[in-house]
Amino acid sequence: MNDRREPVPVEQILHRVRALCQRATRDREGQFWIEGIRHFVRACDARLQIDAVVQSETLLKSALADKLARRLAAEGVPRYRVSPEHFRTLSVADHASGIGAIVRQPWTPLERAEQRSGLCWIVVEQIRSPGNLGTILRTAEAAGASGIIFLDRSSDPFHPAVVRASMGGLYSLALVRATFPQLRRWAATRRILFVGLSPDGGFLWTDLPLSQEVALIVGEERGGLSERLRSLCHASARLPVAGGADSLNVAVATGVMLYELVRRSQMRA
Amino acid sequence: MNDRREPVPVEQILHRVRALCQRATRDREGQFWIEGIRHFVRACDARLQIDAVVQSETLLKSALADKLARRLAAEGVPRYRVSPEHFRTLSVADHASGIGAIVRQPWTPLERAEQRSGLCWIVVEQIRSPGNLGTILRTAEAAGASGIIFLDRSSDPFHPAVVRASMGGLYSLALVRATFPQLRRWAATRRILFVGLSPDGGFLWTDLPLSQEVALIVGEERGGLSERLRSLCHASARLPVAGGADSLNVAVATGVMLYELVRRSQMRA
Repeated sequence: MNDRREPVPVEQILHRVRALCQRATRDREGQFWIEGIRHFVRACDARLQIDAVVQSETLLKSALADKLARRLAAEGVPRYRVSPEHFRTLSVADHASGIGAIVRQPWTPLERAEQRSGLCWIVVEQIRSPGNLGTILRTAEAAGASGIIFLDRSSDPFHPAVVRASMGGLYSLALVRATFPQLRRWAATRRILFVGLSPDGGFLWTDLPLSQEVALIVGEERGGLSERLRSLCHASARLPVAGGADSLNVAVATGVMLYELVRRSQMRA
Repeated sequence: MNDRREPVPVEQILHRVRALCQRATRDREGQFWIEGIRHFVRACDARLQIDAVVQSETLLKSALADKLARRLAAEGVPRYRVSPEHFRTLSVADHASGIGAIVRQPWTPLERAEQRSGLCWIVVEQIRSPGNLGTILRTAEAAGASGIIFLDRSSDPFHPAVVRASMGGLYSLALVRATFPQLRRWAATRRILFVGLSPDGGFLWTDLPLSQEVALIVGEERGGLSERLRSLCHASARLPVAGGADSLNVAVATGVMLYELVRRSQMRA
Protein backbone atom coordinates (compact mmCIF):
# COMPACT_ATOMS: atom_id res chain seq x y z
CA MET A 1 0.00 0.00 0.00
CA ASN A 2 1.33 3.38 -0.93
CA ASP A 3 -1.17 5.90 0.30
CA ARG A 4 0.32 9.35 -0.06
CA ARG A 5 -2.68 11.30 1.16
CA GLU A 6 -2.03 13.52 4.16
CA PRO A 7 -3.81 12.26 7.25
CA VAL A 8 -6.95 14.25 7.90
CA PRO A 9 -6.62 16.64 10.86
CA VAL A 10 -8.87 14.57 13.15
CA GLU A 11 -6.80 11.45 12.66
CA GLN A 12 -3.65 13.48 13.11
CA ILE A 13 -4.77 14.97 16.40
CA LEU A 14 -6.06 11.65 17.75
CA HIS A 15 -2.69 10.17 16.89
CA ARG A 16 -0.83 13.03 18.61
CA VAL A 17 -2.91 12.69 21.76
CA ARG A 18 -2.41 8.94 21.91
CA ALA A 19 1.32 9.35 21.38
CA LEU A 20 1.44 11.63 24.44
CA CYS A 21 0.54 8.62 26.60
CA GLN A 22 4.13 7.55 25.97
CA ARG A 23 6.83 8.99 28.19
CA ALA A 24 9.27 9.25 25.26
CA THR A 25 6.85 11.40 23.26
CA ARG A 26 6.05 13.61 26.23
CA ASP A 27 9.75 14.17 26.86
CA ARG A 28 10.53 14.86 23.21
CA GLU A 29 7.58 17.19 22.60
CA GLY A 30 7.60 18.84 26.02
CA GLN A 31 3.82 18.49 26.06
CA PHE A 32 1.15 16.49 27.87
CA TRP A 33 -2.53 15.70 27.48
CA ILE A 34 -5.24 16.80 29.88
CA GLU A 35 -8.87 15.83 29.77
CA GLY A 36 -11.99 16.96 31.52
CA ILE A 37 -13.66 20.20 32.45
CA ARG A 38 -11.88 20.63 35.79
CA HIS A 39 -8.45 20.11 34.29
CA PHE A 40 -9.12 22.30 31.26
CA VAL A 41 -10.50 25.20 33.29
CA ARG A 42 -7.70 24.99 35.83
CA ALA A 43 -5.02 24.83 33.12
CA CYS A 44 -6.53 27.96 31.55
CA ASP A 45 -6.76 29.71 34.93
CA ALA A 46 -3.11 28.86 35.61
CA ARG A 47 -2.24 30.41 32.23
CA LEU A 48 -0.49 27.28 31.02
CA GLN A 49 0.44 27.33 27.37
CA ILE A 50 -2.20 25.36 25.52
CA ASP A 51 -1.04 24.10 22.14
CA ALA A 52 -4.28 22.52 20.94
CA VAL A 53 -7.85 22.01 22.12
CA VAL A 54 -9.82 18.86 21.31
CA GLN A 55 -13.54 19.20 21.71
CA SER A 56 -16.71 17.24 21.15
CA GLU A 57 -19.47 19.81 21.18
CA THR A 58 -22.05 17.04 21.55
CA LEU A 59 -20.46 15.77 24.76
CA LEU A 60 -19.37 19.05 26.34
CA LYS A 61 -21.88 20.31 28.88
CA SER A 62 -19.86 23.14 30.40
CA ALA A 63 -20.55 26.66 29.13
CA LEU A 64 -17.40 27.90 30.87
CA ALA A 65 -15.14 25.33 29.20
CA ASP A 66 -16.75 26.08 25.84
CA LYS A 67 -16.20 29.80 26.33
CA LEU A 68 -12.54 29.25 27.25
CA ALA A 69 -12.08 27.00 24.21
CA ARG A 70 -13.57 29.66 21.93
CA ARG A 71 -11.38 32.34 23.48
CA LEU A 72 -8.27 30.22 22.89
CA ALA A 73 -9.37 29.62 19.30
CA ALA A 74 -9.74 33.38 18.83
CA GLU A 75 -6.17 33.75 20.10
CA GLY A 76 -5.01 31.34 17.41
CA VAL A 77 -4.85 28.05 19.36
CA PRO A 78 -5.89 25.20 17.02
CA ARG A 79 -9.24 23.75 18.02
CA TYR A 80 -10.16 20.29 16.76
CA ARG A 81 -13.80 19.36 16.77
CA VAL A 82 -14.24 15.61 16.95
CA SER A 83 -17.21 13.25 17.18
CA PRO A 84 -18.29 11.84 20.56
CA GLU A 85 -17.05 8.43 19.38
CA HIS A 86 -13.61 9.81 18.58
CA PHE A 87 -13.45 11.75 21.82
CA ARG A 88 -14.32 8.66 23.83
CA THR A 89 -11.32 6.85 22.37
CA LEU A 90 -9.13 9.50 24.06
CA SER A 91 -10.95 9.44 27.36
CA VAL A 92 -10.52 7.24 30.40
CA ALA A 93 -13.29 8.96 32.37
CA ASP A 94 -16.56 7.18 33.18
CA HIS A 95 -18.36 9.95 31.34
CA ALA A 96 -16.24 11.54 28.63
CA SER A 97 -16.35 15.29 29.22
CA GLY A 98 -15.92 16.40 25.62
CA ILE A 99 -12.97 18.69 26.30
CA GLY A 100 -9.25 18.05 26.33
CA ALA A 101 -6.06 19.88 25.48
CA ILE A 102 -2.44 19.38 24.56
CA VAL A 103 -0.54 21.52 27.02
CA ARG A 104 3.08 22.58 27.24
CA GLN A 105 4.82 21.07 30.31
CA PRO A 106 5.18 23.91 32.83
CA TRP A 107 8.65 23.34 34.28
CA THR A 108 10.16 25.93 36.63
CA PRO A 109 13.98 26.23 36.54
CA LEU A 110 15.62 25.41 39.87
CA GLU A 111 17.23 28.85 40.07
CA ARG A 112 13.73 30.36 40.13
CA ALA A 113 12.51 27.87 42.72
CA GLU A 114 13.25 30.23 45.58
CA GLN A 115 10.75 32.84 44.63
CA ARG A 116 7.71 31.11 45.97
CA SER A 117 6.70 31.36 49.55
CA GLY A 118 4.56 28.37 50.21
CA LEU A 119 4.45 25.93 53.10
CA CYS A 120 7.50 23.95 51.97
CA TRP A 121 9.11 22.22 49.03
CA ILE A 122 8.82 18.52 48.38
CA VAL A 123 11.69 16.56 46.83
CA VAL A 124 10.89 13.20 45.23
CA GLU A 125 13.37 10.83 43.71
CA GLN A 126 11.27 8.03 42.36
CA ILE A 127 7.67 7.27 43.18
CA ARG A 128 6.72 4.04 41.47
CA SER A 129 2.96 4.35 41.46
CA PRO A 130 1.45 7.14 39.33
CA GLY A 131 -1.53 7.12 41.70
CA ASN A 132 0.75 7.80 44.68
CA LEU A 133 2.60 10.58 42.86
CA GLY A 134 -0.67 12.16 41.72
CA THR A 135 -2.04 12.00 45.26
CA ILE A 136 1.13 13.66 46.56
CA LEU A 137 0.63 16.48 44.05
CA ARG A 138 -3.02 16.82 45.07
CA THR A 139 -2.14 16.94 48.78
CA ALA A 140 0.81 19.28 48.21
CA GLU A 141 -1.44 21.81 46.53
CA ALA A 142 -4.10 21.49 49.23
CA ALA A 143 -1.54 22.00 52.00
CA GLY A 144 -0.11 25.04 50.23
CA ALA A 145 3.30 23.66 49.26
CA SER A 146 5.47 25.74 46.91
CA GLY A 147 6.16 22.92 44.55
CA ILE A 148 7.77 19.60 43.82
CA ILE A 149 11.40 19.06 42.91
CA PHE A 150 11.93 15.91 40.85
CA LEU A 151 15.38 14.44 41.26
CA ASP A 152 16.67 13.38 37.88
CA ARG A 153 14.15 12.09 35.37
CA SER A 154 12.77 8.98 37.02
CA SER A 155 9.32 10.38 37.90
CA ASP A 156 7.09 12.12 35.36
CA PRO A 157 4.28 14.31 36.71
CA PHE A 158 2.72 14.41 33.24
CA HIS A 159 1.94 10.69 33.10
CA PRO A 160 -1.82 10.50 32.40
CA ALA A 161 -2.51 8.63 35.66
CA VAL A 162 -0.51 11.18 37.67
CA VAL A 163 -2.37 14.06 36.05
CA ARG A 164 -5.66 12.35 36.82
CA ALA A 165 -4.88 11.55 40.47
CA SER A 166 -3.51 15.06 41.03
CA MET A 167 -7.05 16.41 40.55
CA GLY A 168 -5.52 19.55 39.10
CA GLY A 169 -2.90 19.92 41.81
CA LEU A 170 -0.13 20.20 39.28
CA TYR A 171 -1.43 23.47 37.83
CA SER A 172 -0.63 25.59 40.85
CA LEU A 173 2.56 23.92 42.05
CA ALA A 174 6.00 24.87 40.79
CA LEU A 175 7.37 21.74 39.11
CA VAL A 176 11.15 21.62 39.11
CA ARG A 177 13.67 19.12 37.79
CA ALA A 178 17.16 18.98 39.24
CA THR A 179 20.15 16.71 39.22
CA PHE A 180 21.62 15.66 42.53
CA PRO A 181 24.60 18.11 42.32
CA GLN A 182 22.23 20.95 41.42
CA LEU A 183 20.00 20.12 44.39
CA ARG A 184 23.00 19.96 46.70
CA ARG A 185 24.17 23.41 45.56
CA TRP A 186 20.64 24.77 45.92
CA ALA A 187 20.55 23.51 49.52
CA ALA A 188 24.02 24.88 50.31
CA THR A 189 23.42 28.40 49.04
CA ARG A 190 19.94 28.83 50.54
CA ARG A 191 18.87 28.40 54.12
CA ILE A 192 16.61 25.46 53.39
CA LEU A 193 16.27 22.62 55.86
CA PHE A 194 16.12 19.24 54.14
CA VAL A 195 13.89 16.93 56.16
CA GLY A 196 13.74 13.27 55.20
CA LEU A 197 10.63 11.25 55.90
CA SER A 198 11.69 7.83 57.10
CA PRO A 199 10.49 5.05 59.45
CA ASP A 200 13.88 5.33 61.22
CA GLY A 201 13.86 9.14 61.37
CA GLY A 202 15.60 10.81 64.30
CA PHE A 203 12.64 12.98 65.31
CA LEU A 204 9.00 12.21 65.87
CA TRP A 205 7.12 14.13 63.16
CA THR A 206 5.70 16.48 65.78
CA ASP A 207 9.07 17.16 67.41
CA LEU A 208 11.04 18.41 64.41
CA PRO A 209 12.78 21.68 65.27
CA LEU A 210 11.80 23.90 62.36
CA SER A 211 12.70 27.55 62.11
CA GLN A 212 13.53 27.95 58.46
CA GLU A 213 12.21 27.05 55.05
CA VAL A 214 11.73 23.30 54.69
CA ALA A 215 12.12 20.87 51.83
CA LEU A 216 10.51 17.55 52.63
CA ILE A 217 12.34 14.61 51.09
CA VAL A 218 10.19 11.64 50.16
CA GLY A 219 11.67 8.29 49.18
CA GLU A 220 10.47 5.49 46.98
CA GLU A 221 7.55 3.28 48.14
CA ARG A 222 9.50 0.19 49.10
CA GLY A 223 13.10 1.21 49.58
CA GLY A 224 12.46 4.56 51.24
CA LEU A 225 15.20 7.19 51.11
CA SER A 226 18.17 6.27 48.94
CA GLU A 227 21.67 6.76 50.29
CA ARG A 228 22.20 9.93 48.31
CA LEU A 229 18.90 11.35 49.53
CA ARG A 230 19.90 10.54 53.12
CA SER A 231 23.19 12.34 52.58
CA LEU A 232 21.20 15.45 51.71
CA CYS A 233 19.00 15.47 54.84
CA HIS A 234 19.68 17.83 57.75
CA ALA A 235 17.12 15.98 59.85
CA SER A 236 14.69 13.14 59.47
CA ALA A 237 11.19 12.62 60.79
CA ARG A 238 9.33 9.43 61.57
CA LEU A 239 5.67 8.66 61.96
CA PRO A 240 5.03 6.16 64.73
CA VAL A 241 3.48 2.92 63.58
CA ALA A 242 1.52 0.71 65.97
CA GLY A 243 1.72 -2.99 66.62
CA GLY A 244 2.32 -5.29 63.71
CA ALA A 245 1.87 -2.59 61.08
CA ASP A 246 4.60 -2.37 58.54
CA SER A 247 4.58 1.18 57.26
CA LEU A 248 2.38 3.90 55.85
CA ASN A 249 1.53 4.48 52.24
CA VAL A 250 3.95 7.11 50.90
CA ALA A 251 1.20 9.53 49.89
CA VAL A 252 -0.49 9.21 53.29
CA ALA A 253 2.81 9.73 55.15
CA THR A 254 3.56 12.81 53.04
CA GLY A 255 0.06 14.12 53.74
CA VAL A 256 0.41 13.65 57.51
CA MET A 257 3.76 15.45 57.51
CA LEU A 258 2.46 18.30 55.33
CA TYR A 259 -0.52 18.88 57.60
CA GLU A 260 1.78 18.88 60.62
CA LEU A 261 3.56 21.78 58.88
CA VAL A 262 0.16 23.39 58.26
CA ARG A 263 -0.71 22.98 61.95
CA ARG A 264 2.51 24.68 62.98
CA SER A 265 2.11 27.52 60.49
CA GLN A 266 -1.37 28.13 61.89
CA MET A 267 -0.01 28.21 65.45
CA ARG A 268 2.49 30.89 64.38
CA ALA A 269 -0.19 32.90 62.56
CA MET B 1 -19.38 -34.20 26.09
CA ASN B 2 -20.39 -36.06 29.16
CA ASP B 3 -17.33 -36.25 31.34
CA ARG B 4 -18.32 -37.56 34.74
CA ARG B 5 -14.90 -37.66 36.27
CA GLU B 6 -14.55 -35.65 39.49
CA PRO B 7 -12.37 -32.57 39.02
CA VAL B 8 -8.88 -33.19 40.29
CA PRO B 9 -8.18 -31.35 43.56
CA VAL B 10 -5.86 -28.82 41.90
CA GLU B 11 -8.49 -27.72 39.41
CA GLN B 12 -11.04 -27.59 42.17
CA ILE B 13 -8.94 -25.36 44.38
CA LEU B 14 -7.95 -23.05 41.52
CA HIS B 15 -11.62 -22.69 40.72
CA ARG B 16 -12.51 -21.96 44.35
CA VAL B 17 -9.80 -19.30 44.62
CA ARG B 18 -10.87 -17.63 41.39
CA ALA B 19 -14.50 -17.66 42.50
CA LEU B 20 -13.51 -15.76 45.66
CA CYS B 21 -12.61 -12.78 43.45
CA GLN B 22 -16.37 -12.33 43.15
CA ARG B 23 -18.17 -10.45 45.88
CA ALA B 24 -21.17 -12.81 45.70
CA THR B 25 -18.98 -15.86 46.35
CA ARG B 26 -17.12 -14.14 49.20
CA ASP B 27 -20.42 -13.17 50.83
CA ARG B 28 -21.93 -16.63 50.38
CA GLU B 29 -18.89 -18.58 51.58
CA GLY B 30 -17.78 -16.11 54.25
CA GLN B 31 -14.23 -16.55 53.02
CA PHE B 32 -11.58 -14.57 51.17
CA TRP B 33 -8.30 -15.22 49.40
CA ILE B 34 -4.94 -13.91 50.57
CA GLU B 35 -1.65 -14.25 48.76
CA GLY B 36 1.95 -13.60 49.62
CA ILE B 37 4.30 -14.28 52.49
CA ARG B 38 3.49 -11.14 54.45
CA HIS B 39 -0.26 -11.75 54.30
CA PHE B 40 0.01 -15.44 55.07
CA VAL B 41 2.31 -14.96 58.06
CA ARG B 42 0.23 -12.12 59.45
CA ALA B 43 -3.02 -14.07 59.02
CA CYS B 44 -1.43 -16.97 60.94
CA ASP B 45 -0.11 -14.61 63.64
CA ALA B 46 -3.57 -13.06 64.00
CA ARG B 47 -4.96 -16.60 64.44
CA LEU B 48 -7.45 -16.17 61.63
CA GLN B 49 -9.23 -19.35 60.66
CA ILE B 50 -7.48 -20.71 57.58
CA ASP B 51 -9.62 -23.08 55.55
CA ALA B 52 -7.08 -24.09 52.90
CA VAL B 53 -3.47 -23.41 51.97
CA VAL B 54 -2.30 -23.23 48.36
CA GLN B 55 1.41 -23.62 47.91
CA SER B 56 3.97 -23.88 45.15
CA GLU B 57 7.05 -25.30 46.80
CA THR B 58 9.15 -24.32 43.80
CA LEU B 59 8.19 -20.66 44.13
CA LEU B 60 8.07 -20.31 47.92
CA LYS B 61 11.31 -18.93 49.32
CA SER B 62 10.20 -18.31 52.91
CA ALA B 63 11.14 -20.95 55.47
CA LEU B 64 8.76 -19.33 57.98
CA ALA B 65 5.77 -19.48 55.62
CA ASP B 66 6.61 -23.09 54.74
CA LYS B 67 6.82 -23.99 58.43
CA LEU B 68 3.46 -22.36 59.15
CA ALA B 69 1.90 -24.16 56.17
CA ARG B 70 3.21 -27.49 57.43
CA ARG B 71 1.95 -26.78 60.93
CA LEU B 72 -1.52 -25.97 59.57
CA ALA B 73 -1.45 -29.19 57.52
CA ALA B 74 -0.59 -31.13 60.67
CA GLU B 75 -3.64 -29.54 62.31
CA GLY B 76 -5.79 -30.83 59.48
CA VAL B 77 -6.03 -27.79 57.23
CA PRO B 78 -6.06 -28.95 53.59
CA ARG B 79 -2.85 -28.03 51.81
CA TYR B 80 -2.86 -27.98 48.01
CA ARG B 81 0.49 -28.19 46.27
CA VAL B 82 0.33 -26.64 42.83
CA SER B 83 2.83 -26.02 40.06
CA PRO B 84 4.45 -22.58 39.66
CA GLU B 85 2.41 -22.13 36.47
CA HIS B 86 -0.83 -22.81 38.29
CA PHE B 87 0.12 -20.61 41.21
CA ARG B 88 0.93 -17.73 38.88
CA THR B 89 -2.59 -17.86 37.48
CA LEU B 90 -3.83 -17.00 41.00
CA SER B 91 -1.29 -14.27 41.62
CA VAL B 92 -1.33 -10.59 40.78
CA ALA B 93 2.08 -9.92 42.33
CA ASP B 94 5.11 -9.06 40.19
CA HIS B 95 6.85 -12.09 41.64
CA ALA B 96 4.42 -14.80 42.68
CA SER B 97 5.26 -15.74 46.25
CA GLY B 98 4.18 -19.38 46.11
CA ILE B 99 1.89 -19.16 49.15
CA GLY B 100 -1.75 -18.28 49.51
CA ALA B 101 -4.72 -19.23 51.63
CA ILE B 102 -8.46 -19.28 51.77
CA VAL B 103 -9.36 -17.56 55.01
CA ARG B 104 -12.58 -17.18 56.96
CA GLN B 105 -13.73 -13.53 57.06
CA PRO B 106 -13.01 -12.30 60.60
CA TRP B 107 -16.05 -10.19 61.45
CA THR B 108 -16.49 -8.83 64.97
CA PRO B 109 -20.10 -8.39 66.16
CA LEU B 110 -20.99 -4.78 66.96
CA GLU B 111 -21.89 -5.67 70.55
CA ARG B 112 -18.28 -6.76 71.07
CA ALA B 113 -16.92 -3.65 69.38
CA GLU B 114 -16.50 -1.85 72.67
CA GLN B 115 -13.96 -4.24 74.08
CA ARG B 116 -10.99 -2.83 72.24
CA SER B 117 -9.14 0.18 73.47
CA GLY B 118 -7.40 1.60 70.46
CA LEU B 119 -7.01 5.16 69.21
CA CYS B 120 -10.53 5.41 67.78
CA TRP B 121 -13.09 3.69 65.60
CA ILE B 122 -13.57 4.48 61.94
CA VAL B 123 -17.00 4.31 60.34
CA VAL B 124 -17.20 4.05 56.57
CA GLU B 125 -20.35 4.01 54.50
CA GLN B 126 -19.12 3.51 50.98
CA ILE B 127 -15.59 3.96 49.70
CA ARG B 128 -15.65 3.50 45.91
CA SER B 129 -12.00 2.74 45.28
CA PRO B 130 -10.63 -0.52 46.73
CA GLY B 131 -7.20 1.16 46.78
CA ASN B 132 -8.55 3.95 48.98
CA LEU B 133 -10.30 1.53 51.32
CA GLY B 134 -7.20 -0.65 51.58
CA THR B 135 -5.05 2.40 52.30
CA ILE B 136 -7.49 3.46 55.04
CA LEU B 137 -7.16 -0.01 56.61
CA ARG B 138 -3.36 0.19 56.38
CA THR B 139 -3.28 3.64 57.97
CA ALA B 140 -5.84 2.71 60.61
CA GLU B 141 -3.69 -0.17 61.78
CA ALA B 142 -0.53 1.96 61.77
CA ALA B 143 -2.21 4.70 63.79
CA GLY B 144 -3.50 2.16 66.29
CA ALA B 145 -7.23 2.37 65.57
CA SER B 146 -9.52 -0.21 67.17
CA GLY B 147 -11.24 -1.13 63.97
CA ILE B 148 -13.50 -0.24 61.11
CA ILE B 149 -17.27 -0.25 61.20
CA PHE B 150 -18.80 -0.80 57.78
CA LEU B 151 -22.24 0.69 57.45
CA ASP B 152 -24.47 -1.75 55.62
CA ARG B 153 -22.90 -3.92 52.97
CA SER B 154 -21.68 -1.46 50.38
CA SER B 155 -17.96 -1.77 51.09
CA ASP B 156 -16.16 -5.11 51.25
CA PRO B 157 -12.79 -5.20 53.02
CA PHE B 158 -12.13 -8.64 51.52
CA HIS B 159 -12.04 -7.46 47.91
CA PRO B 160 -8.64 -8.63 46.59
CA ALA B 161 -7.48 -5.06 45.83
CA VAL B 162 -8.50 -3.89 49.33
CA VAL B 163 -6.64 -6.79 50.94
CA ARG B 164 -3.57 -5.98 48.84
CA ALA B 165 -3.57 -2.23 49.55
CA SER B 166 -4.16 -2.86 53.27
CA MET B 167 -0.67 -4.40 53.47
CA GLY B 168 -1.98 -6.69 56.17
CA GLY B 169 -3.76 -3.93 58.08
CA LEU B 170 -6.97 -5.88 58.16
CA TYR B 171 -5.53 -8.67 60.30
CA SER B 172 -5.21 -6.64 63.46
CA LEU B 173 -8.24 -4.38 63.14
CA ALA B 174 -11.67 -5.32 64.40
CA LEU B 175 -13.92 -5.40 61.34
CA VAL B 176 -17.55 -4.74 62.15
CA ARG B 177 -20.69 -4.54 60.06
CA ALA B 178 -23.68 -2.60 61.29
CA THR B 179 -26.92 -1.24 59.97
CA PHE B 180 -27.69 2.40 60.52
CA PRO B 181 -30.18 1.76 63.40
CA GLN B 182 -27.66 -0.56 65.09
CA LEU B 183 -24.95 2.08 64.80
CA ARG B 184 -27.27 4.74 66.19
CA ARG B 185 -28.11 2.57 69.20
CA TRP B 186 -24.41 1.78 69.71
CA ALA B 187 -23.66 5.49 69.78
CA ALA B 188 -26.52 6.27 72.13
CA THR B 189 -25.66 3.66 74.74
CA ARG B 190 -21.91 4.29 74.79
CA ARG B 191 -20.08 7.53 75.39
CA ILE B 192 -18.62 7.61 71.89
CA LEU B 193 -18.15 10.91 70.07
CA PHE B 194 -19.00 10.63 66.37
CA VAL B 195 -16.76 12.99 64.43
CA GLY B 196 -17.44 13.52 60.74
CA LEU B 197 -14.64 14.42 58.38
CA SER B 198 -15.94 17.01 55.95
CA PRO B 199 -14.68 20.01 53.95
CA ASP B 200 -17.42 22.07 55.65
CA GLY B 201 -16.72 20.73 59.15
CA GLY B 202 -17.39 23.03 62.08
CA PHE B 203 -13.96 22.60 63.67
CA LEU B 204 -10.46 22.80 62.27
CA TRP B 205 -9.04 19.30 62.63
CA THR B 206 -6.65 20.53 65.32
CA ASP B 207 -9.34 22.30 67.33
CA LEU B 208 -11.75 19.43 67.92
CA PRO B 209 -12.67 19.22 71.59
CA LEU B 210 -12.08 15.56 72.38
CA SER B 211 -12.39 14.06 75.80
CA GLN B 212 -13.99 10.73 75.13
CA GLU B 213 -13.72 7.77 72.79
CA VAL B 214 -14.00 8.84 69.17
CA ALA B 215 -15.47 7.24 66.07
CA LEU B 216 -14.29 9.00 62.95
CA ILE B 217 -16.90 9.03 60.21
CA VAL B 218 -15.58 9.00 56.66
CA GLY B 219 -17.77 9.65 53.65
CA GLU B 220 -17.64 8.56 50.05
CA GLU B 221 -14.93 9.98 47.75
CA ARG B 222 -17.04 12.39 45.74
CA GLY B 223 -20.21 13.03 47.71
CA GLY B 224 -18.63 13.10 51.18
CA LEU B 225 -20.86 12.42 54.18
CA SER B 226 -24.38 11.31 53.33
CA GLU B 227 -27.33 12.92 55.10
CA ARG B 228 -27.79 9.96 57.43
CA LEU B 229 -24.09 9.98 58.34
CA ARG B 230 -24.30 13.70 59.06
CA SER B 231 -27.29 13.07 61.32
CA LEU B 232 -25.08 10.75 63.38
CA CYS B 233 -22.20 13.21 63.92
CA HIS B 234 -21.74 15.04 67.21
CA ALA B 235 -19.08 17.24 65.63
CA SER B 236 -17.34 17.60 62.32
CA ALA B 237 -13.76 18.41 61.45
CA ARG B 238 -12.32 20.05 58.35
CA LEU B 239 -8.86 20.09 56.91
CA PRO B 240 -7.99 23.48 55.42
CA VAL B 241 -7.33 23.43 51.70
CA ALA B 242 -5.24 26.12 50.05
CA GLY B 243 -5.86 28.18 46.96
CA GLY B 244 -7.53 26.53 44.01
CA ALA B 245 -7.29 23.03 45.46
CA ASP B 246 -10.50 21.11 45.46
CA SER B 247 -10.21 18.57 48.23
CA LEU B 248 -8.01 15.87 49.67
CA ASN B 249 -8.01 12.22 48.75
CA VAL B 250 -10.22 10.40 51.29
CA ALA B 251 -7.42 8.07 52.45
CA VAL B 252 -5.03 11.01 52.92
CA ALA B 253 -7.63 13.04 54.82
CA THR B 254 -8.36 10.06 57.08
CA GLY B 255 -4.62 9.60 57.65
CA VAL B 256 -4.11 13.25 58.59
CA MET B 257 -7.02 13.12 61.07
CA LEU B 258 -5.84 9.81 62.57
CA TYR B 259 -2.33 11.15 63.15
CA GLU B 260 -3.78 14.27 64.75
CA LEU B 261 -5.42 11.88 67.22
CA VAL B 262 -2.06 10.10 67.64
CA ARG B 263 -0.38 13.47 68.32
CA ARG B 264 -2.93 14.27 71.01
CA SER B 265 -2.68 10.85 72.62
CA GLN B 266 1.10 11.30 72.80
CA MET B 267 0.68 14.70 74.43
CA ARG B 268 -1.49 13.10 77.08
CA ALA B 269 0.94 10.24 77.64
